[in-house]
Amino acid sequence: MKRRTALVATAALPIAALPALAGAETKPAPPALVDDPKTLLPALLLKQAAQWTAGDLEGFCSHYADDAIFVSPSGRTDGRAAVEQRYKKKYVDKRGMGALTLEVLHLIADGSVASIAMKWRLSFEAKPPAEGFSVIGLERRAGLWKIVHDASM
Amino acid sequence: MKRRTALVATAALPIAALPALAGAETKPAPPALVDDPKTLLPALLLKQAAQWTAGDLEGFCSHYADDAIFVSPSGRTDGRAAVEQRYKKKYVDKRGMGALTLEVLHLIADGSVASIAMKWRLSFEAKPPAEGFSVIGLERRAGLWKIVHDASM
Repeated sequence: MKRRTALVATAALPIAALPALAGAETKPAPPALVDDPKTLLPALLLKQAAQWTAGDLEGFCSHYADDAIFVSPSGRTDGRAAVEQRYKKKYVDKRGMGALTLEVLHLIADGSVASIAMKWRLSFEAKPPAEGFSVIGLERRAGLWKIVHDASM
Repeated sequence: MKRRTALVATAALPIAALPALAGAETKPAPPALVDDPKTLLPALLLKQAAQWTAGDLEGFCSHYADDAIFVSPSGRTDGRAAVEQRYKKKYVDKRGMGALTLEVLHLIADGSVASIAMKWRLSFEAKPPAEGFSVIGLERRAGLWKIVHDASM
């Protein structure tokens, strides 16, 4: 599902930029699709996972809302800044962070609110992978989707 | 917050049924409020918690969508029926279930989709309480809000 979404996300702009192709065999996606959360949100998670894998914790955490609530078996963390601090404390370098993949299991969205159930997986060079699940609630604020609720384990 | 919501939820219908009171000192809530997820969903959680506390696992689970995804530190459970079986296996009688309270920490909703971060607490007669957190994603289907995603720990 992620791979297909990535293709849609990367292909949408070039097609829209070539109106001469409209009506050709490959029918261009309707413009509304570009704004569709079912396209945007998996693309956002792909980007977020790539930021993690690149060791870019600030980038990874930039997708959280300033007032995000993050809960895990170790407790509750309030606010984007605190979420970032929590991650920085837990993951001191890029090597320790590993390579992250986020697999969307199910997504619901309407208007400016969405919820995603997903599976996360961290692969490491020198140790076995770790995996678990998350449910996140997102809200579109000032045009940008932000993670407002995150329960990860 | 829950107590205030309970008052709104229980008071809304009698006020609506007494149009003669409109314009009186206590201004009646606008009709739209009755359909407001910020009122409906905390009321749903109050009802669900009461069903749990009454030992009514079927009632408690009736708020899950047929295709709900439930994740916890022990793994993933797919579908309302499997969620109910999981609970029935874990909680064999009313006494073991304890008294449940669900405290809404934050709620976002738009149209037919909502996300809630909450704290749950189980009180028991003969042992210390248990507590933890959940993030749930809900969708209104055929007029009824159903839990589609649940991450609890």
